[in-house]
This record gives sequence, structure tokens and C-alpha cells, in this order.
Amino acid sequence: MTSTPELPLRNEFFLPTNSEVGAHRLLNDADKPCTYLCGNSLGLMCKRSRELVEEELGVWATRGVIGHFDHPQKRDWVGLADHARPYLAEIVGANEKEVACMSTLTTNLHLMMNSFYKPTSERYKILCEAKAFPSDQYAFASQAQAHGLDPVKTVLELSPRPGEYCLREEDILKVIEQDGPSIAVVILSGVQYYTGQWFPMQSITQKAKEQGCICGWDLAHAVGNVPLSLHDWDVDFAVWCTYKYLNSGPGGIAGLYVHEKWNDSLKPKYSGWWGHDPLTRFAMPSQFSPVEGAGGFQQSNPSILAIASLLGSLQTFRKAGMMAPLRKQSILLTSYLEKLLFQSKYFVPLEEVSTKYKEGKGPPGFTIITPRDTKDRGAQLSLLFLPSGTGVMQQIFESLQSHGVIGDERQPDVIRLAPIHLYTNEADCEAAAQYLNKAFDEFEAQAS
Amino acid sequence: MTSTPELPLRNEFFLPTNSEVGAHRLLNDADKPCTYLCGNSLGLMCKRSRELVEEELGVWATRGVIGHFDHPQKRDWVGLADHARPYLAEIVGANEKEVACMSTLTTNLHLMMNSFYKPTSERYKILCEAKAFPSDQYAFASQAQAHGLDPVKTVLELSPRPGEYCLREEDILKVIEQDGPSIAVVILSGVQYYTGQWFPMQSITQKAKEQGCICGWDLAHAVGNVPLSLHDWDVDFAVWCTYKYLNSGPGGIAGLYVHEKWNDSLKPKYSGWWGHDPLTRFAMPSQFSPVEGAGGFQQSNPSILAIASLLGSLQTFRKAGMMAPLRKQSILLTSYLEKLLFQSKYFVPLEEVSTKYKEGKGPPGFTIITPRDTKDRGAQLSLLFLPSGTGVMQQIFESLQSHGVIGDERQPDVIRLAPIHLYTNEADCEAAAQYLNKAFDEFEAQAS
Ligand SMILES: Cc1ncc(COP(=O)(O)O)c(C=O)c1O
Ligand SMILES: Cc1ncc(COP(=O)(O)O)c(C=O)c1O
Repeated sequence: MTSTPELPLRNEFFLPTNSEVGAHRLLNDADKPCTYLCGNSLGLMCKRSRELVEEELGVWATRGVIGHFDHPQKRDWVGLADHARPYLAEIVGANEKEVACMSTLTTNLHLMMNSFYKPTSERYKILCEAKAFPSDQYAFASQAQAHGLDPVKTVLELSPRPGEYCLREEDILKVIEQDGPSIAVVILSGVQYYTGQWFPMQSITQKAKEQGCICGWDLAHAVGNVPLSLHDWDVDFAVWCTYKYLNSGPGGIAGLYVHEKWNDSLKPKYSGWWGHDPLTRFAMPSQFSPVEGAGGFQQSNPSILAIASLLGSLQTFRKAGMMAPLRKQSILLTSYLEKLLFQSKYFVPLEEVSTKYKEGKGPPGFTIITPRDTKDRGAQLSLLFLPSGTGVMQQIFESLQSHGVIGDERQPDVIRLAPIHLYTNEADCEAAAQYLNKAFDEFEAQAS
Repeated sequence: MTSTPELPLRNEFFLPTNSEVGAHRLLNDADKPCTYLCGNSLGLMCKRSRELVEEELGVWATRGVIGHFDHPQKRDWVGLADHARPYLAEIVGANEKEVACMSTLTTNLHLMMNSFYKPTSERYKILCEAKAFPSDQYAFASQAQAHGLDPVKTVLELSPRPGEYCLREEDILKVIEQDGPSIAVVILSGVQYYTGQWFPMQSITQKAKEQGCICGWDLAHAVGNVPLSLHDWDVDFAVWCTYKYLNSGPGGIAGLYVHEKWNDSLKPKYSGWWGHDPLTRFAMPSQFSPVEGAGGFQQSNPSILAIASLLGSLQTFRKAGMMAPLRKQSILLTSYLEKLLFQSKYFVPLEEVSTKYKEGKGPPGFTIITPRDTKDRGAQLSLLFLPSGTGVMQQIFESLQSHGVIGDERQPDVIRLAPIHLYTNEADCEAAAQYLNKAFDEFEAQAS
């Protein structure tokens, strides 16, 4: 593959070594970086994040409460979340006031649903993909229940066609068209966590709007991964976490977007002082007067350590030139990994799976359920191990780990691998393919 | 004063120096610790907190995603919040399952109100203190509005008698008795942020329960400050932040308590995967099955850096012997500071203020609006500067700061000073009184 010249920025990151991740079969390369393909679950730490966290610890140690208003690096804590906004706005394709850096993903999802989901007897359904991330499923069900509605009748799930894993654009649009008048909110994930499918966000949003539905997105796996234009696509709201492609660290602070067209008509349902106009926030008037835009949804003063850690990564995004070059690099890397996987003798094209694995039997192998077209996916490839339900995945996963290839397992049969634009290189892709083949070879040898 | 032998644990903390806090009139003592009396706003950083944050950064750097389940210090991130629970339970007087370490204060307040506030046409009021912390006021008003109620008619505020600053127990109990049948939720702050009054929590809770009201508490200024027995007092719910007396750092992770008697009948209204039974959380079933107790209210995976920082302080609390010795030390310190302030020639006893400052005129001075009885207050003393509304406070505040005395100003007339059991010493109290007198001397000299 031909890499974009400046990327990856491996040196900006802490790369766990083989020994550190327990790669016990790579004793000779114990101190070399492992093959980290799990940035879709937890992004690696960049050096700038560590630096900024250390700096904030230092300010706390030396200034105490004064850091809120008089910060040696001019990052007064009282406004620190606002430092993240320009970056986040650019990454999701929005105006600065349309985004807020706050709280956590599921909490933000509820905040948004609390303001946007207003079911009536005609228009009450929540449309999402089947097998959405469980937290979203729980959130949608509880939102329905909060309005006295039966989740089973309220939450409408989009399922793939029989034998397929991804949703077809035409099928999604058809459901929105057919059920439109009864759908209150269309809320899918931008990139599906399990299959890696990048949904056609623009056309779904457009169709939802045509049908008078609110359209929101869970961008957990999309933000920092694929280019987004929330404002121009006319998306109503979106929420995301930052610990995946945005590398903010475990449980990092989340984000939220609200289209500015809602500024006048939509107020936060459950307010807190951090959403109050900063000019009078500390005068502490008893009447709530929200910040215009997404910021009005803030309830509490946010964790400074969490924001500092995120900021370090966002500055590294800037150094890389933000999403355009990163997306280019990401396509190159994922395509390269895919090419190597296609060459594996254990690879089974998706369209051959049903005939080759009749009644769940057949030789050990794998297929890729993520769409092939780069416009329908982000960085992640989801490998489905065959025959399904026979435990092949688990053994391969452990073998990969013992060779320092860190992916992410989803029981019973899937391993997700995500080369990351900022820090993965070609050799990582090659190592993943090589050790995958080795794992299969050994699996076969064992079985015979 | 006679100090408890082991306290303070000053050496366990980073004490900002005079030069670091901008004490420009103490050039000769520039490198000595400042007089930090602002732990009621932001607690200082203890060394163990820094250590633990550094350790978690190290785990992220060296293990990436593996830290969630296989942590070198046996603090798997997936369960890290649970490490804080035993400490928090002990500090608030609850069983472990009754508390959760999660989210932020105002957000938790809404979560609790969402489950506990169920207004009917007869019983719909929210009883709180007048001039509650603004975030709470906004929260209560928006909770009323979310149910289509008028906040003005719904939120019932307890005001002090004319000319008084604190609420009298008898007055609070009388209102609960008189309005009981129309009150849905009694929710006050445990220790009032402005006056420093520690409300008689047990008798208020008991009276509220007698009247069939839900009783909740905002413990922002109470937790880690005064001893609490939430479970035994039969408190229904409570919420708190940890960045004040619990020293977790700016915007630190918050806490939540729900009495176990609610386990069967009360479910989280808005659910998320982190409240789901951990045994099946990663199997990701589509049906939500909450953790028993407070943990079921968790929505999202929490910030590891924020928890690590809190844990460091909680371990330091343990080292100090937890709340019993700390409260003893706190009483000694605050009483000592009060004694020194009483001796100031600028001190005006509260009962003399109205006669001495007729029509808002009189010599520069100060009184203390915090209750005198130690059973009615925590660490904080709230100084009211006189004559009120004339800007005395602002000048004194700046003078104190120039001498390294860090308190907390509340416009227009109050400075709050809080000696902290864990790290304040007698000399701090003496410095505060000394520089306060000096500030007044200079103020007078200027004026004449
Ligand atoms: C009594 C009280 N309630 C609520 C809050 C708001 O806290 P947060 O911003 O953590 O939600 C504070 C903050 O100082 C407080 O003192
Ligand atoms: C698509 C999606 N939604 C929601 C969540 C839940 O995130 P949180 O725990 O930050 O609320 C995740 C977490 O991985 C996710 O991938």
C-alpha cells in the first residue's frame, strides 16, 4: 500500500509492547510494539494526552481552586470543555455551538431523547437497527416505558435480510417511508459496532426528515473514524463517546450535537447550572437561562482530567490534518488488511458461506461480514469464524493474542480488527494476517 | 487547641505555596505552603491520588484495552467504580449496595428525581431550602416543568426568619407537618453551601417519612465533612460530588445512594448497560436486568482517571481512620478558627448586627452567619462583611489572597473559610485571623 506521507503518527503514541499485552509466544520480540487493532474499542494514549493530564495534575497541586479561573497555561478549568468544541465541531461537521463536550454517551443519549422524543398516539415509534449496542437498546426501551408505552410495540428494529449481516440502504429507506408517519425518532448508530457497517447517514437522515421524523445518531464508532457532516445533512441530534477513535482513555468524557435550528424551540428538559449562561453562572441567579445550543444541555461541571486527556488526542488529530488525510489513510490501511485477509487460504467469501457451511458444518475458516465497499465502512473489519458456534473464534483469538495481535472478540463468533489511521502501520496489518493464518494452521493440525 | 495525635496528614497532600497562589505580599515566605481554607470548594490533591492517576495512565499506555479485564494492580477497569463503594458506603453510613460511584452531581440528582418524584394532584410539591445552590434550583424547577407543573407553585422554599440566616429546626419541621400531605419530595442540602449550616438531617428525614414524603439529600458539602448515617436515618436517596471534602479533583466523579428498601419496587427510569448485571453485561442480552441497588442507576462506563483520583483520597481517609477522628479534628480546627475570629476587634456578634448597622451604615467589620453550635455545622465558617453591600468583602478578600489566605467569595458580602481535617493545621487558622485583621486595619487606614 502507499501511505499518505505524514501518517501514521506512531511516535505520538504509547504503543503497548508484546510482553506488556501478554504475547507469550513472541519472546524474541517482547519489547517491540504489539499489533494493536483494537482502537475501535479503546484508542491508545497519545503522548500529548499524558502531558496535558500531568499538567492539570500540576495545576491542581500548585493552585488548588484557583485553577478554575486563573490557569498558568490559560486553560481555566471553568472553560476547559469549550477548548474541545472547535475540534469536535470540525470532526462531526458542525458549528461550534452545535456541540458540547460533556458527560457520557448513554447519559447524553437519554438527555437527547428526553428533549426530542415526544410520542403522540400517531407518531410514537423509535426506529433503530436490530442488535444495536445493548446500552442503546436498554435506553430506547426505557424511554418507551417512561411514556407508558410497550417497548415491543414502540421500538421498531431494522433487521438484515435472511442470511445477511448488514442492512441494505433500500430496505432502510423503505421502512422509513412505509412507517414514517408512526415514527417519532430514527436513531441508528453511524457505524455499527458489530458489523462495522457505515450506514448511509445522509440518505437516511434525508428520508427521515421527509417523513417528519426526528433523526439522531449514536456516533460511538463513527466519530474520528469516518468523515461526518451533521449540520449539512440536517441531522437533529447526535451523541458519541471519545474513548474509541478519539483516544480519550477509558470512560473518557463524551460529546453531544444538536442542530442549531432547534435553538429557539428546544430547551433542555432537565437543567443544571453548567448549562446556564456562563456570564451569570457564578452570580447564581435563581432563574435558569441556558447557553444557546448544545452547551445548554450541560448539567454539571466536567472532569478536568478527562477533558485534558481528550484534548491531547484532539491536538494530535489537528497535527495529522484532521479527518480528510486520516480518512484517506484509514481506507488505505483497512483495504490493505482486507487484501491480506482475502489471500488467506482460510478465507471464505461471504456469498459462499451458506453453501459451504450447510447445517453448520465445514472446515475451519472465516469470512468478513463488514461491507466491501469503502463508502459503507470505517476502519473496522468484522471477521466471522466458521463453522459458527463451534468455538473456532475463541481459539483463534487466544492464539492471536499470544502473538501480540490485539483485536476484540464478540461472542460467539466474531473478532473485530481495526487498523487506526493515527498509529497503525502496514506491518501491523501483515502481522495480523500472518498470525491469523498461523492460528488456523495450528488449529487444523490439532484437530487432525 | 489540642489536636488529635495523627492529624493533620499534611504530608500526604500537595500544598500550594504562597507564590503559586499569587500571595504577592509574602515574598519572604514565597515557598511556604499557603493558607488553603477552600477545601469546601475544591479539595487539595493528595499524593496517593497522583500516584493512582499515574498508574492508570501507565496501564493505558502499556496494556490498552486489556486494562479493562486484566489489570497489573488488580484494579480491572470494568470494576474500578466498585473499589470506591466500600469507602463511600462507610462515609455516608450505608451498605455497599446502597451506593454507586458514578456520573456527576446534578445528573445524579435528576436520575433520582426521575425515579422518586412522582407528583399526583394531591402530593406534588418539592420542599427545599430557599437559596439552594442554583443547580439544584434549576433542577427542581425543570423537574416540575417536566410534569407540566408550575415551578412557582410546586417548589416550596424554606426561608429563615426575618433578619436570620439559618433555618430553625422547629420551623423546618413545622412546614413539613403543615404541608406534608402536599409534599412529594423533601430535598435539602445536608450542609448548606452558603451559610455552612448542617441541617438536622435525622429529624427532618423522620418528619418527612412520618408525613409520607420521599426524603432525599444533596450532600455536596456534607460528604466527608460531617458524619452521616443515611441508612439508619431512613433516608430514601442522596447524591453528592467528590471534589470538595473528598478531594477527587476538579469535576471529579460523583456518588449516589438509594436505600435498600427500594430495591424491589424502584427501577431506574432511564437505563444503560452499566447498570446491567455485570455477570451478563458483556454477553449483551437485549433485556435490561439491573444490578440490585444503587448500581442499577449507572448508565455508562465511568472515567478511570476520575475514579483513580478519588480512590487516592479515599485511601487517605482510611489512613486517617475515616470519619470519627476526622470529625473530631474538624470540630477542633473550626472551633479554633472561630475563637480567633471572635477575638478580632472587627468581629460583630450576629445578634448585634441589626442594631449596629442601622440603615446599612456602620464601621467596617464582619460577623459569622454559620451556627455556633458544632452540631449544627461542619468545617465551614461563613463570614458576612459589614456594612453589607458596600464592597468591604471584595477588598478584604483580595488582601487575604495577597497574603496567601485562600477562601471562597460569594458576592456580595460573604467569604467562606473551611479548615480541613486532613490537611489544615493550627497555624493556618492563626494566619487567616491575623491577615484578616491586617486587611481590616489597612482598610480603615485607607478610609480615614
Ligand atoms: C450544593 C451543591 N449542589 C450542586 C452542585 C453542582 O455540582 P455539579 O456541577 O457537580 O453538578 C454544587 C457544586 O458546587 C453544590 O455545591
Ligand atoms: C454504539 C455504542 N453505544 C453506546 C455505548 C455505551 O457507551 P457508554 O458506556 O459510554 O455510555 C457503546 C460503548 O461501547 C457503544 O459502542
